[in-house]
Amino acid sequence: MTKPTGGPKAKVLEHRADEVPDAADQGLKPSTRSDIDSFIVMDVMSAAAAKEADGQRIIHMEVGQPGTPAPQSARDAVSAALADDHLGYSLALGEEKLRKRIAEHYGEMYGVDMDPNRVVVTAGSSGAFVLAFTALFNAGERVGLPSPGYPCYRQILKSLDLQPALIRTSESDRWMPTGDAVEARHADDALSGLLVASPANPTGTMLEPDRLQDLTQVSEELGLWFISDEIYHGLTYDQPAVTALSYSDEAIVINSFSKYFSMTGWRVGWMVVPERLVRVFERLAQNLFICAPAVSQVAALGAFDAKEELEANKQIYAANRELLLSELPKAGFTKIVPADGAFYLYCDISDLVDEGSTSIDLAAEILDEAGVAVTPGLDFDPERGGQFLRFSYARSTADMEQAAKQLIEWHDRRGRLT
Amino acid sequence: MTKPTGGPKAKVLEHRADEVPDAADQGLKPSTRSDIDSFIVMDVMSAAAAKEADGQRIIHMEVGQPGTPAPQSARDAVSAALADDHLGYSLALGEEKLRKRIAEHYGEMYGVDMDPNRVVVTAGSSGAFVLAFTALFNAGERVGLPSPGYPCYRQILKSLDLQPALIRTSESDRWMPTGDAVEARHADDALSGLLVASPANPTGTMLEPDRLQDLTQVSEELGLWFISDEIYHGLTYDQPAVTALSYSDEAIVINSFSKYFSMTGWRVGWMVVPERLVRVFERLAQNLFICAPAVSQVAALGAFDAKEELEANKQIYAANRELLLSELPKAGFTKIVPADGAFYLYCDISDLVDEGSTSIDLAAEILDEAGVAVTPGLDFDPERGGQFLRFSYARSTADMEQAAKQLIEWHDRRGRLT
Repeated sequence: MTKPTGGPKAKVLEHRADEVPDAADQGLKPSTRSDIDSFIVMDVMSAAAAKEADGQRIIHMEVGQPGTPAPQSARDAVSAALADDHLGYSLALGEEKLRKRIAEHYGEMYGVDMDPNRVVVTAGSSGAFVLAFTALFNAGERVGLPSPGYPCYRQILKSLDLQPALIRTSESDRWMPTGDAVEARHADDALSGLLVASPANPTGTMLEPDRLQDLTQVSEELGLWFISDEIYHGLTYDQPAVTALSYSDEAIVINSFSKYFSMTGWRVGWMVVPERLVRVFERLAQNLFICAPAVSQVAALGAFDAKEELEANKQIYAANRELLLSELPKAGFTKIVPADGAFYLYCDISDLVDEGSTSIDLAAEILDEAGVAVTPGLDFDPERGGQFLRFSYARSTADMEQAAKQLIEWHDRRGRLT
Repeated sequence: MTKPTGGPKAKVLEHRADEVPDAADQGLKPSTRSDIDSFIVMDVMSAAAAKEADGQRIIHMEVGQPGTPAPQSARDAVSAALADDHLGYSLALGEEKLRKRIAEHYGEMYGVDMDPNRVVVTAGSSGAFVLAFTALFNAGERVGLPSPGYPCYRQILKSLDLQPALIRTSESDRWMPTGDAVEARHADDALSGLLVASPANPTGTMLEPDRLQDLTQVSEELGLWFISDEIYHGLTYDQPAVTALSYSDEAIVINSFSKYFSMTGWRVGWMVVPERLVRVFERLAQNLFICAPAVSQVAALGAFDAKEELEANKQIYAANRELLLSELPKAGFTKIVPADGAFYLYCDISDLVDEGSTSIDLAAEILDEAGVAVTPGLDFDPERGGQFLRFSYARSTADMEQAAKQLIEWHDRRGRLT
């Protein structure tokens, strides 16, 4: 494989919020709350797509998306529905059969007895965050978010006139918040809620069960809504994840068919909410979304029959993880956060970025010079993310092998140049 | 056909916002901004679904949804994609091919030359409203809405901390706002935007082209964002609709594949925005939605090849409209708003509702006693909607014939009882 050459240079840096031309000069101004950062990984996707349109081959390690399509049983269910189902609006809370199946999943996976009426089918976890934030918080309120974390939490909160209150995590706490840290943040800033994901994005680290329980209790004591993003459940390599519903019926749990079920583009997920809030969520869902895509709800129901295929996908991720833990250090990525789940490796790149440059520059260099799309840590951590990169290993093992080879070659060339 | 008997009584009334149990007694409270009315038509759908689950046959004239599935070419495109397309995340602004095809549509339908870069593919028009309202307005700002109008405008605005400023329309102005009315409302309440739909929901009436032009100019003079909801374009029975883009490049145009293209449940629509705002909308779309459903984007592209099938659907609506205009008066619905487009008839029912009761009661009665689901005017007009009902005629002509028969029988029985 030769070094990719030519084509457009990656312009990731130009895509930051503060580089948008000032609309004031040209007419009416957009709202101040729309002045959020881009979801940088999607800008990397755009930059990679521009290179691919130019004929280059790019290996995608930027986006948190399985290389596999929806499982066969999901696609079969859609094929059948195309022939004989109207696929019109569903009820706002979702198709009854799907809500029931999701409730059963809690019994199978966690041993939790779940009333299907508490399940809200959503337009991906994205739709669930919009619903949860509008349902639970008034303008101006603060929501605690571990940092690093999924960037859309921050941006959705801002666009809804809410304030992200970052809770800095570190290696010593497995990059997860402690009860003490939450209490301290609340003492400073009067939080209204706490949102935690385990396994986490971008680190892949997990909360131990007793720490998850502790966080639900601390939230209850402090009067905070506890939101548990469980989107990476099912993708753990050592011990299974525990749902917050094991410890609290007050938790708002968000999940999705995007990751374990390999259905990113279908935009279908779900939440579990306290019984008394079902009607609040229903009214919001009716008005803001009408319903999750009907075709995707059909696919989601079908996906529950794909256990074997989905477990085989997971074995690929496990193999990719092993491969990269062994190969990435040869490309200079020696400081990798110990990931328990998801399909990410988060690497400290402080040895690789030059003075005055950041992970955005390094990601652009790697895209240009190694033909591998990766995500700058600044997407996940505005403070320290300039010194981190996230690698997603959700594609085929052959892709990962090729990526490792190209990254090692890039690193070797780079070493000779400097 | 005998009168439907037994089964659960329609409980539409119980589903209003103020009848939700007070969460304060039981734990943390939801936000005040979540305290919106339900989308009543979806509550009617739920009530109808409960009756159907009980074995009754209900004719659906409540929901604004074609009785036809997505056109064959759309379903064929999905079948092909199921076999060979990954259907992962698309770019946030939508698939390039679809954006280009939508831009071409403006040339074909309106003779407007459109840059595909101004097209944003959205999760239905619902997704477009969430994006537009967050992109354009800050918390507390007021947006002018003709009343009666689509109820979700009001509720989405409220959930985003914005204020709907209703502009009362009347028969003398074809139920559409005048420039003077907008100026008067702005003088009272300092609007930041104006949202108009033509053909309108629930009335089906349209703005004459010069009045649409006038509203774009008034908006520009007053410094208001002008949002044109063009979701019922293509469904007009006398003269074609004109896009606001014919008069203003500053207009925000919202449209959808739900109505003319017969793809409600697919949740895919689009907007056209001023060039300088594309990046603002892209950042919001990335974070709030990631993308519109990929499978639905495939279907949408395919739907553009279904002109013959879609025009045949429209002929069915035209026939239904004629039928109902002749039959509904026999069931007591003698005062019907003169509809130019969409697939709705909005009827003044002041002669039919008893003292102290409203359209919600009458809709419940009609569902219980005639087996026909219809939508109370209170969904569309909080002030005067107690005296109106909306009939949707988007299903088969056989359904409409049967509905007319049952409504006439109900009206006859009712006449004998009183």
